[in-house]
Amino acid sequence: MAGSRPLALRDDYAVFQPITTRWADNDLYGHINNVTYYAFFDTAVNRFLIEQGGLDIQNGNVIAYVVNSTCQYRQALAFPDAIEAGIRVEKLGNSSVTYGVGIFKAGASEASAFGEFVHVFVDRQTQKPVAIPTPIRAALERIARAPDAC
Amino acid sequence: MAGSRPLALRDDYAVFQPITTRWADNDLYGHINNVTYYAFFDTAVNRFLIEQGGLDIQNGNVIAYVVNSTCQYRQALAFPDAIEAGIRVEKLGNSSVTYGVGIFKAGASEASAFGEFVHVFVDRQTQKPVAIPTPIRAALERIARAPDAC
Amino acid sequence: MAGSRPLALRDDYAVFQPITTRWADNDLYGHINNVTYYAFFDTAVNRFLIEQGGLDIQNGNVIAYVVNSTCQYRQALAFPDAIEAGIRVEKLGNSSVTYGVGIFKAGASEASAFGEFVHVFVDRQTQKPVAIPTPIRAALERIARAPDAC
Amino acid sequence: MAGSRPLALRDDYAVFQPITTRWADNDLYGHINNVTYYAFFDTAVNRFLIEQGGLDIQNGNVIAYVVNSTCQYRQALAFPDAIEAGIRVEKLGNSSVTYGVGIFKAGASEASAFGEFVHVFVDRQTQKPVAIPTPIRAALERIARAPDAC
Repeated sequence: MAGSRPLALRDDYAVFQPITTRWADNDLYGHINNVTYYAFFDTAVNRFLIEQGGLDIQNGNVIAYVVNSTCQYRQALAFPDAIEAGIRVEKLGNSSVTYGVGIFKAGASEASAFGEFVHVFVDRQTQKPVAIPTPIRAALERIARAPDAC
Repeated sequence: MAGSRPLALRDDYAVFQPITTRWADNDLYGHINNVTYYAFFDTAVNRFLIEQGGLDIQNGNVIAYVVNSTCQYRQALAFPDAIEAGIRVEKLGNSSVTYGVGIFKAGASEASAFGEFVHVFVDRQTQKPVAIPTPIRAALERIARAPDAC
Repeated sequence: MAGSRPLALRDDYAVFQPITTRWADNDLYGHINNVTYYAFFDTAVNRFLIEQGGLDIQNGNVIAYVVNSTCQYRQALAFPDAIEAGIRVEKLGNSSVTYGVGIFKAGASEASAFGEFVHVFVDRQTQKPVAIPTPIRAALERIARAPDAC
Repeated sequence: MAGSRPLALRDDYAVFQPITTRWADNDLYGHINNVTYYAFFDTAVNRFLIEQGGLDIQNGNVIAYVVNSTCQYRQALAFPDAIEAGIRVEKLGNSSVTYGVGIFKAGASEASAFGEFVHVFVDRQTQKPVAIPTPIRAALERIARAPDAC
């Protein structure tokens, strides 16, 4: 799923959000469990959509479902590390969007893990895909990566 | 398990820690799931023990197990709310400690939920109770509530 | 919160449900994290209400909120242990119910952990307490403990 | 990451494990959260390695880390659905293995979600890659998909 530019560096991301780690994020092997990174992805992107795009997760008519996701793990993290999630938009369609997300130890220049996932926007009642609402699209465009020069 | 003083107000707590909420903290009913508050308790107290008392969760000889816990729920919270956990020591024994913990919407004067739990310190190898290590005890004493006037 | 009878033994419970443990239930110390037992409580009781009482968690007008909970931990469990949750009704009111729940290693006679929690039934729209719906009440009565002889 | 054969059907998998869903697996939108499927992946594979290959997650010298993962979501599931995880080995290297995993509503012929992930086996102390231990390799070979005819 990876695009032509990497997601491994801080400079690859448009915006960042702090995430506080939790005791139970650490698994038996002493590091944040691989599954938890996807919870960070979900959290960072939904927070962005709510705060910057006006997504109303409780009552809005349009909601977003994840249809696929992927993650590469590079460096272990562990509670109580302070971390940050960087996000950007890789590809913006009519009803779907592909995000790049990187998880960094606070202040680090290289991502501990990074990946991509796709949201499809649907009508909450019919569950059918719909066009991305205008305020959300505007927010997404602000964090879209520039097209590759060629 | 409640002591003679309440745990419902901000003023009841000695120290506070910020916690960022996550998408999946919200359950089907739209609020942070009751179970998750105990994860906040665990996280706030372990972070305090690590940062203020030098608890080494990865390699230390002494670790702390929860032997009982309880929580009262007053006001619902929901992702993406910013929250804080207030903690204090209710009772400090030779090898065990009872904490009071309150979960607040950021800046709120009344707790959304509060409770208590008991840690018993044990030797990591033998799993037998041991005296609370000196630096941890010193940290706990700093957040112990004052004895009730009588 | 404990009543006059214990919750520590298999014979104390009216019905049982199997629960499969998960990799991340184990925390850094190698055992199922204390928080996860409350997830077992929630799961066992809601499954009972759905299957035996007709609770409709997706669309029903009446839902149940946890207002307090408590747990005592006796013996550690760990993934991949097979476990069972025993449940019974401790106290049945007009709009609320107190459950006793015990978590057992599959086949064990003594609970690894046990506790109680209180559900208040509310109208999903108004969030106000309502009488427990008849089919749910009937199911709860079937697992209520007998009054103590005196 | 997908190989030349699909992972969408029951017949694609070598072995199955039952998984019981939990109340909090359902997110605000009423379905099992996308993140939780990765917890199912982790659980199914580790259980297989423990039970069939003798992996000792508590004390063994060799453990397995996830280095990348991916999932495709096709049909929503929801607590209290009974589910099954199907697993097979896609590719078996000297120190790493790629699994295919499918999550099925109990008895269904089409997967609700499926994906792949890679385990690298490492020495618990040095954290360096090591050859997959013989009993684990033998177990993995038993669930490896047949090479494509050509």
